[in-house]
Amino acid sequence: MIHNRRDFLQLSALAGAAALTTPLAGFAWPGQQKKLGIALIGLGGYATNQLAPALLQTQHIELRGIVTGTPSKIPVWVEKYKIPEKNIYNYDNFDKIADNKDIDVVYVVLPNSMHAEFTIRAAKAGKHVICEKPMSVSVKEGEAMIAACKKAGRQLAIGYRLHYDPFHLEMMRLSREKVFGEVKLVEASDGFRAGDPAQWRLHHALSGGGPLMDVGIYAIQGARYTIGLEPTYVTAQAFPKTDPQKFKDIEESLAWQLYFPNGAIANSFSTYITNVNRLYAAAEKGWFELNRAYGYKGQEGRTSQGPMQITPINQQAAHMDGVAKAILENRPNNVPGEEGLRDMKIIEAIYASMAAAGKKLKIG
Amino acid sequence: MIHNRRDFLQLSALAGAAALTTPLAGFAWPGQQKKLGIALIGLGGYATNQLAPALLQTQHIELRGIVTGTPSKIPVWVEKYKIPEKNIYNYDNFDKIADNKDIDVVYVVLPNSMHAEFTIRAAKAGKHVICEKPMSVSVKEGEAMIAACKKAGRQLAIGYRLHYDPFHLEMMRLSREKVFGEVKLVEASDGFRAGDPAQWRLHHALSGGGPLMDVGIYAIQGARYTIGLEPTYVTAQAFPKTDPQKFKDIEESLAWQLYFPNGAIANSFSTYITNVNRLYAAAEKGWFELNRAYGYKGQEGRTSQGPMQITPINQQAAHMDGVAKAILENRPNNVPGEEGLRDMKIIEAIYASMAAAGKKLKIG
Repeated sequence: MIHNRRDFLQLSALAGAAALTTPLAGFAWPGQQKKLGIALIGLGGYATNQLAPALLQTQHIELRGIVTGTPSKIPVWVEKYKIPEKNIYNYDNFDKIADNKDIDVVYVVLPNSMHAEFTIRAAKAGKHVICEKPMSVSVKEGEAMIAACKKAGRQLAIGYRLHYDPFHLEMMRLSREKVFGEVKLVEASDGFRAGDPAQWRLHHALSGGGPLMDVGIYAIQGARYTIGLEPTYVTAQAFPKTDPQKFKDIEESLAWQLYFPNGAIANSFSTYITNVNRLYAAAEKGWFELNRAYGYKGQEGRTSQGPMQITPINQQAAHMDGVAKAILENRPNNVPGEEGLRDMKIIEAIYASMAAAGKKLKIG
Repeated sequence: MIHNRRDFLQLSALAGAAALTTPLAGFAWPGQQKKLGIALIGLGGYATNQLAPALLQTQHIELRGIVTGTPSKIPVWVEKYKIPEKNIYNYDNFDKIADNKDIDVVYVVLPNSMHAEFTIRAAKAGKHVICEKPMSVSVKEGEAMIAACKKAGRQLAIGYRLHYDPFHLEMMRLSREKVFGEVKLVEASDGFRAGDPAQWRLHHALSGGGPLMDVGIYAIQGARYTIGLEPTYVTAQAFPKTDPQKFKDIEESLAWQLYFPNGAIANSFSTYITNVNRLYAAAEKGWFELNRAYGYKGQEGRTSQGPMQITPINQQAAHMDGVAKAILENRPNNVPGEEGLRDMKIIEAIYASMAAAGKKLKIG
C-alpha cells in the first residue's frame, strides 16, 4: 500500500510513471528547462473542464494552442489561457500547424470517429500526438494511426490517464508482486446514465459504438493490467434495450468475459443506463479492489487486509506530464498506440461475439 | 438503513421475518409456550458448527434428535446436546421417526443428491421439513418434494438463511421501497477456494453440480430478491478448467446473466478457485451493496450515501425460528419449496445455456 509521499515516488519510479505534479527540491529532470507546447483539438467538456485546468499544473508541457470548429468558443480560451492568435486553428487550416514551432504535441479530444483523421494529419504535420480513448473506431484505423506516427518519427500516446493514477498503479503492483498470490478473477464494470440524447456518444457515426467504446474500455484496461496478461478469447452478451429510441444506434448495456492464457478470467459489464464503477481482483490469498474506480476523482481502494491509504493526484496532469517526459527523454511513453490497438482488437471481438449470440471468439 | 433495534423490529415485521434472537419483555408470540422439536439429518460441518449451536439460541424450536450414518459421531452429540437415545436414528431406521412425538421438524443437511429422498421420507413420516440449499439436484426432484410435503400436510422450507438476515432484508427494502429508484442492474458473485479434493461437493453424483449449485445459488437468490422480480431468460458461460483433475465432474468457474421482464439485468460469477462474495445493486439514483455478502458473518453494507449501520444476528437461529414460528402459527413460511424450485429452474437453464455455448434460453 502507498502510505506516504516517498512510497508514491518509489512506486512511480517502479512503474516507470515518473509523472509528478509538484517539483522536487534540488532535483532536475533531464530537459526540465524545456517545456513542450501542446494544442488541444476539440474544445468539448473534457478539454474544457479537465485537460486545460490540468495543464496549469504540469511541469513538462503547457497549453499553447487550440483547434476548434466553433469560433464562438475562442474568446474565452484566449482570455483564460493567453492563447496567441497565431496558435488558434480550425479543422480546415489545421495542417498549417506544421509550421508552428510553439506546438510540439497535439491532443485529439474529438468524437471517436475523428480520432484517426486528426491523429494522422497531426503526425504528417510533424507533431507528437496524444489521442483520447478509444484510439479509433476500428482496428484498421488504429493500425493506420500507428503507422502514420511511426513514419513521421513522432510519438503516439493514448489518453489512458489511469496508467498514471496511484490507485491503479497500486492495483498493478499488487498483481505484479503477487502480494495476494496470482490474480485468478477480475470483475470490472463501468457504466453511467447517459442524459442528453443529442450528445455525440449516442450516435454511432460519431462514436463508433456505445458504452463499451466509451467507458467499458476502462474495464477492459483494468482487467488487462490487473491480471497482467493479454486475453486470448472473449464471449459477450447484449442486453435488451429498455430505451430503443435513445439507443437505436448503439448497444445500451452489455456483459463480456475475457479469457486469459493462465486460466484467469474477467467478467465485465457496461451500460448507459445506470452507474457502476468498479475494479475487483480476487487472488489466491486475498482480494483488492477500487470502488469507485475509473472517475477523475473519488476513487476508494480496499484490500482483504483493509483500506488503501493513497493520496489522489490530478490524473490528467500526471498523464500529460508522463507522456511529455517520455518525449523529452526520447523514450517510449507508457500508453502507446499499440496499447490502444490491443483494446480495439478486444472491442471488435466483443462486438463480434455479441452479434454471434455470445459465441466464444479468438481475439485479434 | 437500520439504525437501531426498533428499526430492525419494524423491518422484520415488514418483511414477514419475525425471527428474533432475544425475547421481548411483556410480549408473547402465539404458541410461545410450545417449542417445536427438531432433528438434524446429517452431522457434517454445517450441522455441527452452525445449526446445533444456533439451536441453543432459538425461541421456538430446539434440538431433540439426530440422524447419522456414522455411529462414532453419536457420543459427542449425546453429551453436548443431551440427545436421548430414543431420538437417535440412522439412515435405515429413520422412517420410524413417524412414531416419535418429540420431533416436529426434520432438517435435511445431507449432500445435495440425498435431499429429495430424505425430504420425501420425512414428509411421509409426518414431519415438517427444512431442507438445505440447493433443495435438490433437479427441477423434477424439487417438484416431487413439494408434492410429498403437500400430500402429507406438512411445511417444506429451504435453508435460505439470508431471507432472515438483516443485511439482506435491508437490500430487499432498499429495492422494494425504491429508495434509490428502480434497480436496473445487479452484480452478484459468490465463490471460494475449494480445498480437500475428497469432499462431496466436488463429486457430481453427490452434489449434482459445482459452485453454481453450492454458492452460486446465493448470487441467484440475491439477484432475484434485490430486483424483486423473476428472471425470464438466461445466458451462461463456462470458463476453462485450470485443474481438470480436481474438477473433472463439475464446472470450476462460470458466469451467467439473468434477464428480468422490466429490463433489469444481473451479471454473476461463481467459482471453486477463488474468493468472491458480493451483492451490488445499481438503481436509478444510487447504488447499494453488500461486500462481503453471503457468509455466516462478516457482512459489510454500503450505499451511495454511506455505510449501512446494521447489527449482525445469528442467521441460522433467525432462520429456524422464523420457520418454526410459521409452523406454530399455521401460516406459510418465508422460504417455501416453491422458492427453492424457482432457483432450480434457473440453475437448470444456466447449465443448459453453458452446454449450448452461451445460447440465450428461456427459464422454466
